[in-house]
Parts: sequence; structure tokens; C-alpha cells
Amino acid sequence: MNTDNQQERLQITEEFKWFLAGLIEGEGSLCISLKQHPSARFGYYIDPEFFIYQHKSARELLERAKEFFGTGRIFPKPGNEDVLVFRISARRSILEKVIPFFEKYMKYSSKTKKENFRVFKEVTLALENGEHKTLQGTLRIVELVYSTNHAGKQRKRSKEEVIGRILRDYTPNSESDSEKI
Amino acid sequence: MNTDNQQERLQITEEFKWFLAGLIEGEGSLCISLKQHPSARFGYYIDPEFFIYQHKSARELLERAKEFFGTGRIFPKPGNEDVLVFRISARRSILEKVIPFFEKYMKYSSKTKKENFRVFKEVTLALENGEHKTLQGTLRIVELVYSTNHAGKQRKRSKEEVIGRILRDYTPNSESDSEKI
Repeated sequence: MNTDNQQERLQITEEFKWFLAGLIEGEGSLCISLKQHPSARFGYYIDPEFFIYQHKSARELLERAKEFFGTGRIFPKPGNEDVLVFRISARRSILEKVIPFFEKYMKYSSKTKKENFRVFKEVTLALENGEHKTLQGTLRIVELVYSTNHAGKQRKRSKEEVIGRILRDYTPNSESDSEKI
Repeated sequence: MNTDNQQERLQITEEFKWFLAGLIEGEGSLCISLKQHPSARFGYYIDPEFFIYQHKSARELLERAKEFFGTGRIFPKPGNEDVLVFRISARRSILEKVIPFFEKYMKYSSKTKKENFRVFKEVTLALENGEHKTLQGTLRIVELVYSTNHAGKQRKRSKEEVIGRILRDYTPNSESDSEKI
């Protein structure tokens, strides 16, 4: 076995961080998932998530990423067991680990990825500020989410469908109701 | 200042090289293509090639790679025009640019990729030494090529098929023939 490899039980050097940034540029993604759920205030949970994908033969890279970020989970990609996914979905970790990493190490990223990050960060901060608790805020966040196309990948639902459902399910709160009486 | 123009334009820093190494880890590949051709001495041309793939929305990354290596070509991936390919196939460039880059910047690569590189380099050096000009050398190279599986990707032809064809097409040279008489 290559001792060089093992001995480097993750010395987190600047080199490694730039390498990781390049790997993430190719195999990583920042997504805002919209999960339809009856208990969500406006019908959807809005969750920022960070992923890195790798063929299972390179699991060690995901382990190193996990060690570096100090959080996250590795699991087989649903529908393709040959691919592994490393995911960070805890809002705190996204805010304190993922966003600062991207701020510093996206210097050489493509314009598309930089723009995608800008939106991802804006949505995460909006959620942190509780903007999703108002109808207005939720609609603004949905508009933001749909303003990037994630390098051509399509979402399951159109923006119109999501906004339509949010507005249809919306019932004014009891305070407004009582005002009407 | 009298430094290399290209370097100034690109700011080829160590950071950038590590970032590029990470990108290549995810989106790059080193391949030995075996191209069946009647004019090849043993039926196949054996060509080391280096590729980086990117969605067309990130063309600038391939342009930067091309500028950095100072050679290569960018073209749409046959069969999927949304993806661009950056390719270096000139043996000289593989020897003088690609291999030295990998030697230095693969430090954080997966074991699979390191092993793949080791074979790639061995085959390229064997070709450089003219080993493919003998039947023995060609067979050794084919064995080497099939000793890695490129992260699970399958080749079009099995090793047995390739070796079978090489041996079937092989006709002893006139010297051997005359010895038999």
C-alpha cells in the first residue's frame, strides 16, 4: 500500500483546499430543494443542500471531503449504486462551513457556478432571516430559486406550478380573518 | 515586466494548478485508445489521449485549461452537443505537458486514478521507445491497457478479441520465412 497516501491522514493544506474546490467545480452541486409537504406553512420546505458525487471506486475522496468539512453523510446515489453521494444539508453547516469555503475557493469557477452560488447564498440567508415565514418572502425565495438553471438541469415542477400551489393553498391567518368579521 | 504573457493573462498560480488538478480528478480522463486500422502494423493504432469534459455553460474552464497546457482542442462531444471536450492527443504534448502535470498534482487523487495514471505513463513511454513495433511489445502494451478499468467504464472490445485479432493478422516477416525454407 502506498504509504504516501496513508501518511497524509488529511493534512489540510491550502493545496488540498484548492484541489477540493476543483473537484467540487466538476462533481459538486449546490441545490435548493423544494419539498412539497402538507405541514409546511406554504406547502413546501425549502432546503439548501450541498452535494459531491463520485464513482464508488473513489470513495476515499468523499471521506476526505467529509473529514475536511467535519460533517455530512456519504450514501449510494438512489437509482445508481455505482455512484456515491456526499451530502451536507444541516442549515448550520451550510452557513458556517459550505458558504465560507465557496466564498474563498471559487476564484477559478465558471461564471455559471459563481452565479449559482450567489443565489444559493441569498436563499440560505433569507431562510436564516425567517423570510420564508411570510407569503411575500416565500414567493421571493421561489423566484430566486428558479432564477438559476443549474447548468441546464431541469426541476421536476415549473415555477408557475409551485407558485400556483403556494397561492392556492394560502389561507389568510386568523388575525386577518378576525379583522374581516 | 518581462514574464510570459500567457502567464500574466491567466495568472497561472499554484492555486490555479491545484484547482485544475481537482477539476481533472472529477471531469478529466487519461485514455489509451486502440484504433483498429488496416495500415497499422499489428492491426491497431495505440494512442494515449487526455480529455477534460465540461457542460457548454462552463466553456471558459476548458479555454483556461487549453491556455495553461498551451495545446489541445475543444469540440462538442459527439452525441451530446451540450457537453464540450478538451483533448490533447499529440504524443509530444502528452509526454512534455500532461504527464509532468499529473506527476506533480495528483497528490490528492484517488488510488484508482493514480493507478490509471501509472499505466498510462508506462504505455506512453513504451510507445516512445518503439515497443509497439514488435509483436511482443504490442502484446505487452495491450495487456497493460486492459489492466485498468477506467473507473468501471468498459471497452468496446474484450482483451481476448484484440489479442486474437493481432495474432491472427500476424504474418512472420520475410527473414523468418526464409529461415524456414
